[in-house]
Amino acid sequence: MKLKSLVLATLAPLTLVSLSAQAQFAKVEDAVEYRQAALSVMGTHFHRIAEVVKGEKPYDKATTENDAAIVEMLSRLPWSAFPPNSMVGDSKARPEIWKEQDKFKADSDKLQAAAQKLSAAAKTGDLAAIKTAFGETGKACKACHEDFKKKD
Amino acid sequence: MKLKSLVLATLAPLTLVSLSAQAQFAKVEDAVEYRQAALSVMGTHFHRIAEVVKGEKPYDKATTENDAAIVEMLSRLPWSAFPPNSMVGDSKARPEIWKEQDKFKADSDKLQAAAQKLSAAAKTGDLAAIKTAFGETGKACKACHEDFKKKD
Repeated sequence: MKLKSLVLATLAPLTLVSLSAQAQFAKVEDAVEYRQAALSVMGTHFHRIAEVVKGEKPYDKATTENDAAIVEMLSRLPWSAFPPNSMVGDSKARPEIWKEQDKFKADSDKLQAAAQKLSAAAKTGDLAAIKTAFGETGKACKACHEDFKKKD
Repeated sequence: MKLKSLVLATLAPLTLVSLSAQAQFAKVEDAVEYRQAALSVMGTHFHRIAEVVKGEKPYDKATTENDAAIVEMLSRLPWSAFPPNSMVGDSKARPEIWKEQDKFKADSDKLQAAAQKLSAAAKTGDLAAIKTAFGETGKACKACHEDFKKKD
């Protein structure tokens, strides 16, 4: 295999992901707005579960179940909205996102798996299970922020 | 019934709604960010269905079903995030929202019902049914914007 082909073969999966993400948004600014909006709504509902887990708010099964279902759905959305060259505006994305695509995908996959478990736990109404799943989800948020988000 | 009691009885439902909405957000700015974020993500996925309905993008059942499920879930979220005195920052909310609470609620209920039908239609894979439900959902968006959103 020639060097050029090897380079192309190595880059191909990354390029496909990027093109697919780009195709979804007319401008990189739209992608930034979308991913920030999805992360913001997810953060609000995750924070509401945090208040219950910490005992600051009373536990209500239906409310936490709804919050967790929203977190689960939104946890799937931001990752298609990181096209190349989208560190624009007030984006806190770090360049490592595009340099370490496999790690970024692994981090986001972990969050989605954890959010799915949190939603499943919320459906059972078992507060201890919710607390455990909440902790795992929080860890996934934090790991990805530490790896890929600029500090405030 | 004394006048004071009558006034209190009339205002009570509105006050309860407002207090409940206020209690969810520490600051009115947080409520504005939340409702704008939810409406933005909903708008993105509604727009993707629009492209399919207009024939600008090919119809793919799984994609449209996913878009419609996101629209349905997000259509329920913004309405708790209009506490009193939250026409702040770049909010496009008009004062009529708080003067005509019943109409605002009726408009938002219509959207939620339409989005639910759109999601149900998307699950069937019947593109004609999707187009009809999409049209009704678009009408609900437009009606509420005309009644309660500042022009750009």
